[in-house]
Amino acid sequence: MRTRLLMGLQEALEAIINTLEPRPLGTEEVRLEEALGRVLAEDVEAPIDVPGFRRALMDGYAVRAQDTFGASVEEPARLKLVGRVEMGQAATVSVGPGECVEVSTGSMLPEGADAVVRLEDTVLHGQDVLVFEPAVPGQNVMEAGVDIKAGELVLRAGDFLTPQKLGVVSALGLRTVRVFRRPRVAVISTGVELVRPGEPLGPGKIYDINWLTVQLAVKAAGGEPFFLGTARDDSAELADLMAEGLEKADLVVATGASSVGSSDVVRDALSRLGAQVVVDGIRVKPGKPTVVAKAGGKPIFCLPGHPTSALITFTVFVEPVLARMSGLKGLTRPVLRARLASRIIPDTGRHNFVPVSLSKGPDGSLLARPVLKGSGAITSLSHADGYIEVPEGTEFLPEGTEVEVKLFWPPWPIGRSDIEAHVGR
Amino acid sequence: MRTRLLMGLQEALEAIINTLEPRPLGTEEVRLEEALGRVLAEDVEAPIDVPGFRRALMDGYAVRAQDTFGASVEEPARLKLVGRVEMGQAATVSVGPGECVEVSTGSMLPEGADAVVRLEDTVLHGQDVLVFEPAVPGQNVMEAGVDIKAGELVLRAGDFLTPQKLGVVSALGLRTVRVFRRPRVAVISTGVELVRPGEPLGPGKIYDINWLTVQLAVKAAGGEPFFLGTARDDSAELADLMAEGLEKADLVVATGASSVGSSDVVRDALSRLGAQVVVDGIRVKPGKPTVVAKAGGKPIFCLPGHPTSALITFTVFVEPVLARMSGLKGLTRPVLRARLASRIIPDTGRHNFVPVSLSKGPDGSLLARPVLKGSGAITSLSHADGYIEVPEGTEFLPEGTEVEVKLFWPPWPIGRSDIEAHVGR
Repeated sequence: MRTRLLMGLQEALEAIINTLEPRPLGTEEVRLEEALGRVLAEDVEAPIDVPGFRRALMDGYAVRAQDTFGASVEEPARLKLVGRVEMGQAATVSVGPGECVEVSTGSMLPEGADAVVRLEDTVLHGQDVLVFEPAVPGQNVMEAGVDIKAGELVLRAGDFLTPQKLGVVSALGLRTVRVFRRPRVAVISTGVELVRPGEPLGPGKIYDINWLTVQLAVKAAGGEPFFLGTARDDSAELADLMAEGLEKADLVVATGASSVGSSDVVRDALSRLGAQVVVDGIRVKPGKPTVVAKAGGKPIFCLPGHPTSALITFTVFVEPVLARMSGLKGLTRPVLRARLASRIIPDTGRHNFVPVSLSKGPDGSLLARPVLKGSGAITSLSHADGYIEVPEGTEFLPEGTEVEVKLFWPPWPIGRSDIEAHVGR
Repeated sequence: MRTRLLMGLQEALEAIINTLEPRPLGTEEVRLEEALGRVLAEDVEAPIDVPGFRRALMDGYAVRAQDTFGASVEEPARLKLVGRVEMGQAATVSVGPGECVEVSTGSMLPEGADAVVRLEDTVLHGQDVLVFEPAVPGQNVMEAGVDIKAGELVLRAGDFLTPQKLGVVSALGLRTVRVFRRPRVAVISTGVELVRPGEPLGPGKIYDINWLTVQLAVKAAGGEPFFLGTARDDSAELADLMAEGLEKADLVVATGASSVGSSDVVRDALSRLGAQVVVDGIRVKPGKPTVVAKAGGKPIFCLPGHPTSALITFTVFVEPVLARMSGLKGLTRPVLRARLASRIIPDTGRHNFVPVSLSKGPDGSLLARPVLKGSGAITSLSHADGYIEVPEGTEFLPEGTEVEVKLFWPPWPIGRSDIEAHVGR
């Protein structure tokens, strides 16, 4: 094997972002009901005042405040009741001097009135209303546009659309929003021994895992995956699939081809495509043989074939690119603090992502147990709740060390202004 | 207003779960690609061994270990190379005494062999292989079924399906999984003043928010929402919509009808339906007028009309029911620690859910600022990143108090064995 200096984690991440320059791919208009989890592609300005009219904030009577000045229990103001404003209707009566109009919370304030006296502070006496408390102008009245003014910037491009943010759009009367198109991702598996589930398993064959987990990781990250096929460890075949991926998708992810034995297959395929190799090996564990390239302006990621390694390298290297192509700032995960259930002897020459399973210890605290790789590809995959990061140069983490575990689920999209971006993880 | 003893938070939650007895609604078979985020409805047992055959774990030569005993650099064992096993193929040659067969990582081990010697520990000499290190039986060999044994319980009913868990199913060669059906939720708005976006806004009218936010909150919680319509503050109309909802859906959520002024509308509508009222008012803020009922065995939730209050009461009271109907244990949210940016004077007689917005303070720490309600329904909705819980009896939280903020996003489904359930929040 040749000896060469591999990039470190940060260097690789910077090379990936700076060279691939991932950015949103275009926009589309979607109805509000379909916009959950999408990313806003343009600023939203309020086309109307909210509320659109002066509203009563209490059940009671709309009055001219000056008519109630000096009113008291001993000497109530006597106002003539000239009508009622129905909820959700125009106020068809107006309040003249010495008059009042019945209103309810949320109904329109009639012309002439500048305050609302609460029902509790009045008594109805024939056609007259006795008011026992003086009102001040503006009392129990919500002016038009107090919540949102027409022309106000309400949401901004890059906002991740939650129920709340879309609720605001609904309050403005808008029926659709313009969002960024989801990135399409072509997924390729590599390995002559791989069979897809549902097909018969011949001798020497195993069922493929990454065809599925990579597609689902793409989905969880907001992309639209599709599976292109399995390359049989042959660079021409792999190059053909990659070329098809570059044509049909915005990003290509291949797993398995970058393992030590077949790394030449990847380099050969990339060179057939005339791809620019951006990263060729990284000082991380797992993920050392990761290759990242750019062809036709589009990213190609070649990840390890071990399912847990593929998942971790996808999270670390592909997601930041995919997130930016979706219009997000990034994608993160909840972090839980735990204690190591057993020691970790990291590879000091690499940045280690150690997959762990979490469980509750006898004292109720959370335990993180490194998931042994080696033989059990499936066992380690199914037990990995998240991973710990152990930087280059760390010699040893004894049992009981407090660690931060980044969970695989739930994915946490970071929009323009989201909290996680503030927290600055 | 009548004086009556309202239920406290815990009492209400217990009454809801014990009386509504929410449980999964049925199952359906879905393809693995469509199963992300669903809940497994039946245990998955491995139909096959994984791997299905003895595999080589290194590139090298399959040997009979006893033929290499005593081998050293000075006195290597000399073995006759009788063939090669191709990756993904049956081993067609066998290893007799004094023989060896070339293998690569992951290929099938030929008959007769019980160990693999690494390429690095050998030299090829004509048709012979010189082995410089003794092998022990089982060395660099993975037995069939080491990762998963046929018949082994691999996943269990109630597991929330992540990319990893589905990857395991793929490794077993299964093409589909049986998952719980998503609960269908009928959403009703109440208020004569409400107009849906896209329609013209007449005088005295405002655009509805809850028709959308409640549907999206249902979606985020794993349900299938549909909007039934708007009841115009009339109990007969509300009862009709609820009856339609009970017919078409598994759960009904109405907002706005339970406000103080119109609480009789709700009770009247529920009594027309012959519904059993489970909870009628709760000592929480917001959410005091929340009404929960059961009719035809199905839950009906009547939530406040204020959008932020509707969202909070949905999260606190509807989600636990919806989650159980989905086959989950529950649904939670990431929690961030922050300091109060301004004091909170809670309602001491109620359990307070205080909506807050989060931002980064000058010292880099996270600040939680209570979102003022009152007038600004939209403003408070769009700024609420999450909420703080302040239990009954708390008098005062000064500025700077360290608090835990439960975020509205991302929702965090808790399956049978998920970590959050272990953490025991």
